[in-house]
Amino acid sequence: MQWYFVAALLTVLTSSQGILTTLSQSNGGYQYDYATVPFLAEVFKLIVSSILLWRECRKSPNVRMTTDWKSVRLFPIPSIIYLIHNNVQFATLTYLDTSTYQIMGNLKIVTTAILFRLFLRKKLSTLQWMAIVLLAVGTTTSQVKGCGAASCDSPFSAPMQGYMLGVLSACFSALAGVYTEFLMKKNNDSLYWQNVQLYMFGAIFNMLRLLLDDFSGGFEKGAWWQRLLNGYTISTWMVVLNLGTTGLLVSWLMKYADNIVKVYSTSMAMLLTMVLSVYLFNFKPTLQLFLGIIICMMSLHMYFAPANMLVDLPLTTKVAAATLDEISVERRTDS
Amino acid sequence: MQWYFVAALLTVLTSSQGILTTLSQSNGGYQYDYATVPFLAEVFKLIVSSILLWRECRKSPNVRMTTDWKSVRLFPIPSIIYLIHNNVQFATLTYLDTSTYQIMGNLKIVTTAILFRLFLRKKLSTLQWMAIVLLAVGTTTSQVKGCGAASCDSPFSAPMQGYMLGVLSACFSALAGVYTEFLMKKNNDSLYWQNVQLYMFGAIFNMLRLLLDDFSGGFEKGAWWQRLLNGYTISTWMVVLNLGTTGLLVSWLMKYADNIVKVYSTSMAMLLTMVLSVYLFNFKPTLQLFLGIIICMMSLHMYFAPANMLVDLPLTTKVAAATLDEISVERRTDS
Repeated sequence: MQWYFVAALLTVLTSSQGILTTLSQSNGGYQYDYATVPFLAEVFKLIVSSILLWRECRKSPNVRMTTDWKSVRLFPIPSIIYLIHNNVQFATLTYLDTSTYQIMGNLKIVTTAILFRLFLRKKLSTLQWMAIVLLAVGTTTSQVKGCGAASCDSPFSAPMQGYMLGVLSACFSALAGVYTEFLMKKNNDSLYWQNVQLYMFGAIFNMLRLLLDDFSGGFEKGAWWQRLLNGYTISTWMVVLNLGTTGLLVSWLMKYADNIVKVYSTSMAMLLTMVLSVYLFNFKPTLQLFLGIIICMMSLHMYFAPANMLVDLPLTTKVAAATLDEISVERRTDS
Repeated sequence: MQWYFVAALLTVLTSSQGILTTLSQSNGGYQYDYATVPFLAEVFKLIVSSILLWRECRKSPNVRMTTDWKSVRLFPIPSIIYLIHNNVQFATLTYLDTSTYQIMGNLKIVTTAILFRLFLRKKLSTLQWMAIVLLAVGTTTSQVKGCGAASCDSPFSAPMQGYMLGVLSACFSALAGVYTEFLMKKNNDSLYWQNVQLYMFGAIFNMLRLLLDDFSGGFEKGAWWQRLLNGYTISTWMVVLNLGTTGLLVSWLMKYADNIVKVYSTSMAMLLTMVLSVYLFNFKPTLQLFLGIIICMMSLHMYFAPANMLVDLPLTTKVAAATLDEISVERRTDS
């Protein structure tokens, strides 16, 4: 399976997520408890990965699985980082309005590349760094509030703490991604075994969150397991399946591709959602959306196209290549 | 004189042009006839070029000057193209509002590169083409109408003729530039002699335009030479000198650099003007201006930085280089 096929599928599914979520609303609101969706998605991923692991074990007796506690104990860490991230996010939103928060969210493209470089020691060329910055600039451009938007707060007018928390939030989001990539690549363990560990802890942490919400709400709406599937419709289940499937694809990309591929997939998905919204929900197409798409496409090509497709190689290289050809011909003639 | 120094100077002077023009207004309008400014600028350039040519001729007896009519008759052509361009521009503005017209004006960056490739047969790498598109996207981004703008017409809502005329206008503007570069580079004639021819015709065409305006206005305001310097202040003269000087710099760039350098200079000047307006005229800084600046800076670096600064050369190149070194050592040892 080629990584770009998986990446394209991730783009399409991530993009449908927003649209499915909108479709799952009725009378302008959710008839179900939205917090139960991520929990069920974790359970779905856990079941799928368990089945795949079981099939893999049946086929071959030597599936690589490190069951050492020293290794297993690393797998709740992404969940813990996400937990911290959620809290930072909550704090950030007390200082920033949603649209400024959304704009700052694009920073995670850049922070992911920085942590990717620092922690995973992957080298990026100058052009690739420029592509990363352009991707963040492109997604931001598409989100610039147009003429006639309802609220007109300048994104530069929030208190300083808001921006600092926004940067912190982008760092935690990037850290979770980079740490997961580290986990998936640190040894040759079966992807399914790694997934089982990841989603086991994911399900537990999501369950704890639901329980915590119940406690803080004084069990007014009853315990979470009592209202788990209340108000679920076909489209709610589609949202759960979609979220679960995108999670599995991300996991695959973390093992066989990398965080940057994932960042491109999800950024493109954001643009695709905006384009689809123009058709599905009669959103007004804006000039900034059009510009943002061009910028992101350029960035994509800059990052992934091979160097000799982008630049004319310097003359010395060509001379060197030609001379080498010549010499090899000479040698063949000699012998 | 290095071309990037001239290009930087052109950026600063072009940017001051807008600011000086604003400062030359009093009571919210021009106290002088603005149409006389380009004419006087042509005269200024003609005088400066004549003096420089005279000095050059005094220093050395063999200054290269082609005085053949076959050559001289090519020099009014840029003025004629500008004349057509002005009329197309006028027609375009009957279909497009000013801000859509301004947005479409960025197309001339792309049309200049296309004509530059087609007529002057200069090759651009894929990365350079991408840089050109990004420059146009970047300048457009900075002009996206912000939240709370007075008029909210979508730039996609004008009649089709308007867009077609806008494209035509961008082509004529590019053609004038590319043709001038062809004129300046077609032989080794002295720059000053080429300038004298160019500005002679420039002054004549500007004079004809003033005369034509007088005729169409029925000489209500008197003949143009009678009101030539009416209402001129120090700042009006500054506008004239500035316009003249930028013209001379453009001419220099056309001979010793090229149209793309000029396009970058003037695009950067547009952004610089917007930044200065934030300080000088208390304009509200927008997110789109900030994004546009980043995009244009990236574009600048992509276009002008040497390839090996942007990408890691492919391994084969390095191997080739290393092998060549080895072989040359072998040969030296042999002999």
